[in-house]
Amino acid sequence: MMVNVDLAKAYRLLNHGPTILVTSSHAGKQNIMAAAWNVPLDFDPPKIIVVIDKNTYTRELIEASGTFAINVPCVAQIDTVQKVGTSSGRDLEDTDKFAEYGLETFPAKEIAAPLLKGCVAWLECKIIPEPHNQNTYDLFIAEVVAAYADERVFSDGHWHFEGYDDLRTIHHVAGGSFFATGEVHQAGHSG
Amino acid sequence: MMVNVDLAKAYRLLNHGPTILVTSSHAGKQNIMAAAWNVPLDFDPPKIIVVIDKNTYTRELIEASGTFAINVPCVAQIDTVQKVGTSSGRDLEDTDKFAEYGLETFPAKEIAAPLLKGCVAWLECKIIPEPHNQNTYDLFIAEVVAAYADERVFSDGHWHFEGYDDLRTIHHVAGGSFFATGEVHQAGHSG
Repeated sequence: MMVNVDLAKAYRLLNHGPTILVTSSHAGKQNIMAAAWNVPLDFDPPKIIVVIDKNTYTRELIEASGTFAINVPCVAQIDTVQKVGTSSGRDLEDTDKFAEYGLETFPAKEIAAPLLKGCVAWLECKIIPEPHNQNTYDLFIAEVVAAYADERVFSDGHWHFEGYDDLRTIHHVAGGSFFATGEVHQAGHSG
Repeated sequence: MMVNVDLAKAYRLLNHGPTILVTSSHAGKQNIMAAAWNVPLDFDPPKIIVVIDKNTYTRELIEASGTFAINVPCVAQIDTVQKVGTSSGRDLEDTDKFAEYGLETFPAKEIAAPLLKGCVAWLECKIIPEPHNQNTYDLFIAEVVAAYADERVFSDGHWHFEGYDDLRTIHHVAGGSFFATGEVHQAGHSG
């Protein structure tokens, strides 16, 4: 079951540094790509940073629409993450990556980008225009306007993956190699 | 044993989203703080982003020196990370957090900031001045000018934590709760 995440706690969905999927939509076109380079930037209202290369189709769609969604994928979706992360939606004729890879989506509330089913968290984002950052560094700053999570692994502002290894978030290193988010350690209790 | 990391592969030290320690030094003062909000920004020359709040003592030292070091801590250092992440070096009289918490350091090669022993990777950074980002978002962009790692867990551009659970990198969520970097999953091999 999907639950709303309090916007003041939305940073916790990304604070541990997972690799994400960026979905976008503009003028009837939609796309999805992987982005390891993302980070929270502020708490409330929540802001985030994501790095989106100039050559990507996603870049075109998010600059045109001013919005995108962050989908936080899990271990069960590693092959999907790798596929959408190593192909371009621009190369597909008469279709898109969602159809090409059989990806199911559901609508966002505040923006046009579709949200990917099977992920464990979602953040709807509106770009704060910063042309210098975008042009010089491929760096996008956005405000999070809605956030949800799969309550099996995130509720009351906390991740809890115990018993759900396939729903653990993932962290890309390079070349299709990912780490799953691992064991919990609490400071002051580590001996 | 500490080994040099090829600068073109330095992004891999941060690509999986670990929480880091930022060390700094200026005019005989030095400090250390925790920063979950960091992310690679470019490959070669490597650039990184780190978010450093205006109220921190670290902010004062890195703006004055134009440099800082990223130290990547591990499970064995969680209590240290929590301590230096929840105290201010500005509050200490006649001492600093290194002396206060018994932290041993060694010198960096290109910058003045001390490097923390016991970490598993280190990146020496020179700030690329971007006053608007710094003042508006607490966002610092820096170029990585030297990088090293503990060869027990990182070599030839790859992390390999098997057999070294205490040296796994860590990912802060909130309130002193951390995830260790977990199991490896390779796309295309996950069934």
